[in-house]
Amino acid sequence: MINLNLPSCDFVIFGTKGDLAKRKLFPSLYRLDKANKLYDNTRIIGVGRADWNKKKYLNIIKEYLKKFMKEKIENFIWTKFSNRLEFCNIDVNNMSDFAQLKKILNDPEKVIINYFAMPPNTFSAICRGLGAFNLNNNMSRIIIEKPLGSSFKTSQIINNQVAKYFQESQIFRIDHYLGKETVLNLLSLRFANSLFSKNWDNNTIDHIQITVAEEVGIEGRWKYFNEFGQMRDMVQNHLLQLLSIIAMEQPINFHADSIRNEKVKVLQSLSLIKDSDINKKTVIGQYTSGYLHGKVIPSYLDENGSNKKSNTETFVSLRVDIDNIRWKGVPFYLRTGKRLPCKCSEIVIFFKKITLNFFSEHLQSLPQNKLIIRLEPNEGLDIQILNKIPSLNLVHVLKSTKLDFCYSKNENFKHLPSAYERLLLECMLGMQSLFVRRDEVEEAWKWVDSIIYTWEKHVKYPELYSAGTWGPLLSNNMIIRDGRFWS
Amino acid sequence: MINLNLPSCDFVIFGTKGDLAKRKLFPSLYRLDKANKLYDNTRIIGVGRADWNKKKYLNIIKEYLKKFMKEKIENFIWTKFSNRLEFCNIDVNNMSDFAQLKKILNDPEKVIINYFAMPPNTFSAICRGLGAFNLNNNMSRIIIEKPLGSSFKTSQIINNQVAKYFQESQIFRIDHYLGKETVLNLLSLRFANSLFSKNWDNNTIDHIQITVAEEVGIEGRWKYFNEFGQMRDMVQNHLLQLLSIIAMEQPINFHADSIRNEKVKVLQSLSLIKDSDINKKTVIGQYTSGYLHGKVIPSYLDENGSNKKSNTETFVSLRVDIDNIRWKGVPFYLRTGKRLPCKCSEIVIFFKKITLNFFSEHLQSLPQNKLIIRLEPNEGLDIQILNKIPSLNLVHVLKSTKLDFCYSKNENFKHLPSAYERLLLECMLGMQSLFVRRDEVEEAWKWVDSIIYTWEKHVKYPELYSAGTWGPLLSNNMIIRDGRFWS
Repeated sequence: MINLNLPSCDFVIFGTKGDLAKRKLFPSLYRLDKANKLYDNTRIIGVGRADWNKKKYLNIIKEYLKKFMKEKIENFIWTKFSNRLEFCNIDVNNMSDFAQLKKILNDPEKVIINYFAMPPNTFSAICRGLGAFNLNNNMSRIIIEKPLGSSFKTSQIINNQVAKYFQESQIFRIDHYLGKETVLNLLSLRFANSLFSKNWDNNTIDHIQITVAEEVGIEGRWKYFNEFGQMRDMVQNHLLQLLSIIAMEQPINFHADSIRNEKVKVLQSLSLIKDSDINKKTVIGQYTSGYLHGKVIPSYLDENGSNKKSNTETFVSLRVDIDNIRWKGVPFYLRTGKRLPCKCSEIVIFFKKITLNFFSEHLQSLPQNKLIIRLEPNEGLDIQILNKIPSLNLVHVLKSTKLDFCYSKNENFKHLPSAYERLLLECMLGMQSLFVRRDEVEEAWKWVDSIIYTWEKHVKYPELYSAGTWGPLLSNNMIIRDGRFWS
Repeated sequence: MINLNLPSCDFVIFGTKGDLAKRKLFPSLYRLDKANKLYDNTRIIGVGRADWNKKKYLNIIKEYLKKFMKEKIENFIWTKFSNRLEFCNIDVNNMSDFAQLKKILNDPEKVIINYFAMPPNTFSAICRGLGAFNLNNNMSRIIIEKPLGSSFKTSQIINNQVAKYFQESQIFRIDHYLGKETVLNLLSLRFANSLFSKNWDNNTIDHIQITVAEEVGIEGRWKYFNEFGQMRDMVQNHLLQLLSIIAMEQPINFHADSIRNEKVKVLQSLSLIKDSDINKKTVIGQYTSGYLHGKVIPSYLDENGSNKKSNTETFVSLRVDIDNIRWKGVPFYLRTGKRLPCKCSEIVIFFKKITLNFFSEHLQSLPQNKLIIRLEPNEGLDIQILNKIPSLNLVHVLKSTKLDFCYSKNENFKHLPSAYERLLLECMLGMQSLFVRRDEVEEAWKWVDSIIYTWEKHVKYPELYSAGTWGPLLSNNMIIRDGRFWS
């Protein structure tokens, strides 16, 4: 349970030299410090294989911050922050090296947070090392992050490895989408507003779209990505997490397990896609060369390090049905891909059509009301409704009109903490509600596995789409066949 | 039925020298002409007692336009418009005078519109005059306007007088609130948006407020107003018309009688206020001196022409219940008064409270969702919902946030025709849906009469309120007693 009187913590980062540490962890910790969210004697201990003295180490971290933070480093904050920094030269495969870490983590009253910012094949060794020196005691927590396996089976192996040393209550699985402010706001939208809480089901909602579009391609990690593909890399975690928060029943309270109990029920209720429906309900794509903002973009098979015969999908769209009483008949359309026309993530709730059209003289069919939740860019939300355009026209001329709320335009809303800041802080305070429980990971994998298995039997090759477009044409056909359109 | 191929019309204004003609009718007709909404040989015939020649008359009308239109007169439009103008010197009490009008209205194929912009005690004479020369034939229509009596009984007398000469289908009773764009938009809001159409009843709505606040006092017509009071002058017509459009069932189509059939049903369902509830459900007030925008304002009893002993109310607030299945348990709070702090009219739909408050750590009770329809100023609408304020706070801090749509900020919405333009045009085209049918007037009077009767027995004296305030304190108490607050 939450104990806000916890003294302070030692925050250990395994993988100090890695991308995650550089881009996200150190900048987020710096910003938490700036926001006075770190206790006075909280320390940040980088672990890695390097022969750095303190001075060298501080310079390196300062360089990370300069490179990856938008804001400038302030001297006063840096002084405070750098006093927290220590480095510990450890080869995680060498168990005895952990003695040095033990020496540093010498306060038994302090919480220890171990961020495994390294590939999962190192988790076992790290756990063993921590275990050997009793650094997995009940004051200790670990944070782990995707990829947590590439299938139900391989995820079980990873989860079992860490479970040998840590209880589920000590394990914090990050999905950074859960730390985004607009995602957190879903709880307020759904449970603090009767206009939505009373209308969050198949009586009022027609369908829901979740889009996570990336502009970037593979960014130099072709081999890694090619093993996974967009389904394992994005759908299994981010998209299914969004879906489960949108679709879950109202939890009995906001405690971690209450929320996660409801989320896992959604994942357990995902309708399995039959072999005969696989081409109707799923589309996979791979980008060929194309143009994005006027630049020529190479195809997936021409990226650095590519294997020209790869069948890996860089685009997925899915029609997902949820077999429960709330959502029966309300499809969730999911869409995510690389090299799409823009970087944008949004959730769109389409309310049902008006069945009786009184305005048919002007509009053959009335556009649906929509609630649009913009994760990025321009965090915020819109409600789209129809209004009459003022005029002396005798016919009511209607127009879809957005009632807009953009965070950046509102003083109270424009300072958005990053998802990592939020999540690191919650972990330090021992709050697990924004972290993914083991059964959620596993249920998501089971469902994803079932689709990948069917693809392997029946689909085999992804459809090609030009970089800079919204994926293969079949993705449009998939939703048009249902009489609907992508937002 | 509508015949858009009607040739043209002769538009006759009885009461050319009156305020209504000067301020509203001539300016609206000019603007309709400017908008190319008048047929080429449509004529506008002023009727009055004056010895004006054509030149003099044109000058007078030009002066009206200059004084009462915001926009400048354009020469080109004035030339077109002034060619339509004629004047007819008639004493309406002198039947034979109508022969001159008959001479002018010499085209039997043309629609004749007679606007009775004179007090109701002249209607009978006008009708007789028109009838004497068969100017009440089936091409002829009349427009009449409040006050249509001061009680059910006196309204019957007026309605009977005109009914002797004109069929109900020829009678157009103006309530200019029905021509306001934001009121017309109520039909779109309610019937083109499933987000509202599905939620327009006592399952989702807690209560509704209708406010029509005036800054002005009596404006030199003390004697007239004092006979009527705010209840007869504003509630019986404007406020009950708004209420009936908000509350009506979906009509079977948009034809005049379909809509009016539904509106009258609402008026018939208004719950009568018991003697014992009169002080709980109604408050009347009269302003004393006070301040408005820094100016000293005299009391109602000190206005020009006043009778110091008057008990007439200048403020009314009411709790209105509608006895039907849709609205049982959803009070409509009506409030209107003179010398209030601002000129503003709005309708606020308060959705029900969330019964289970998950955010009680931060908010003891969750503010309700609201739909705010602003008739004036700043025509438009807001949806007010709760959103989480982005922050690293662990408690969800919520804030009421407006999703705003203001007509003047949107290119498609910023040119608002005036209510009179709209209504005069509809009358020329023979469309009655925005005009009040006799049974509506009568049902409204019956209900208003019943309250006034009870006041006469049990209330007698209005509460005093200072000019520049929101009416007597008792008006606040009335709604607070129900656990609610004025918007």
